[in-house]
Amino acid sequence: MSRFPGVGQKSALRMVLYLLKRPESETISMSEALLKLRTEIKFCKQCFNLSDHDLCNVCTSPGKDQSVVCVVKDFQDVIAIENTGQYNGLFHVLGGLISPVDGVGPADIKIPELLNRCNQGEIKEAIIALSATLEGDTTEYYIAKKLNEMNIEVATLSKGIAIGGELEYADEMTLASSIKNRIKMK
Amino acid sequence: MSRFPGVGQKSALRMVLYLLKRPESETISMSEALLKLRTEIKFCKQCFNLSDHDLCNVCTSPGKDQSVVCVVKDFQDVIAIENTGQYNGLFHVLGGLISPVDGVGPADIKIPELLNRCNQGEIKEAIIALSATLEGDTTEYYIAKKLNEMNIEVATLSKGIAIGGELEYADEMTLASSIKNRIKMK
Repeated sequence: MSRFPGVGQKSALRMVLYLLKRPESETISMSEALLKLRTEIKFCKQCFNLSDHDLCNVCTSPGKDQSVVCVVKDFQDVIAIENTGQYNGLFHVLGGLISPVDGVGPADIKIPELLNRCNQGEIKEAIIALSATLEGDTTEYYIAKKLNEMNIEVATLSKGIAIGGELEYADEMTLASSIKNRIKMK
Repeated sequence: MSRFPGVGQKSALRMVLYLLKRPESETISMSEALLKLRTEIKFCKQCFNLSDHDLCNVCTSPGKDQSVVCVVKDFQDVIAIENTGQYNGLFHVLGGLISPVDGVGPADIKIPELLNRCNQGEIKEAIIALSATLEGDTTEYYIAKKLNEMNIEVATLSKGIAIGGELEYADEMTLASSIKNRIKMK
């Protein structure tokens, strides 16, 4: 139990003792659910999102704009972006970021699959929604270069001050970006 | 001394004891400097930034683009934006934000002066750089409406994820804004 993220030795012991106090059937059904989690949940063949079918529920959703793909690092990002309600296109989950230091190259994550997918002709725009960190920027730059060569429109998330945020707490680079990429008001 | 922000009773006592231990001349020169601070520092007649002359050193700087004005709340914001190195225009310090709850209306801050300044004809663009809070948005909306009527181009800071920030820590509204205002990559 202590292998779970955020669970230490003491919490793990409490969890185990809890299970021992409860009826046996409860532990059995939990163990079955865990097994099911690994055997039945698979990756969507198209976008590598989590899914219990060949294609995930985003890819098969009828109302989605099939011409836009949002490139993210992880499944959590799909959920976060879906929750904003501002995006109505498809996704592509890379499963990692290019990181030369850790020996992760473009072929180690789902970049070849993305390029292949964009090569089919249906996708017109790619939105790269990665963290604004060194690895995120490297990955973004690599993908943007490749997709631009394929005449696909590439966009990146705007960087700037947070909504609800005070100007004085913004760091210099973020403030610089939010001035440089200012938005016209009509 | 304990009236200073961030200074409590104990720190104030330490400051006073420090002064008593040092030569008398030091306290005298400090007291003179404090007096000078209030008598010699005044507000720039054009932009209401702090200044020791009629016009502040931003307004009189020869390289500045005289056709752009950046509207900010406080002097600190001028310093922060100057430090980014991304902006080479003039400023206008409002000295506050519209806040109906606190009884602050447009005429209570330097908005009439801003409109008057923009009416002279030299300013072509205004960048509204206020916090993305309720008061900031209200003030921004009011100024944008007035300036648009005067055919001045109005822009707002882009809102989005912070540079160096992880996507998963961005709140929903900020993420939504950074998708909506995505930036094309060429």
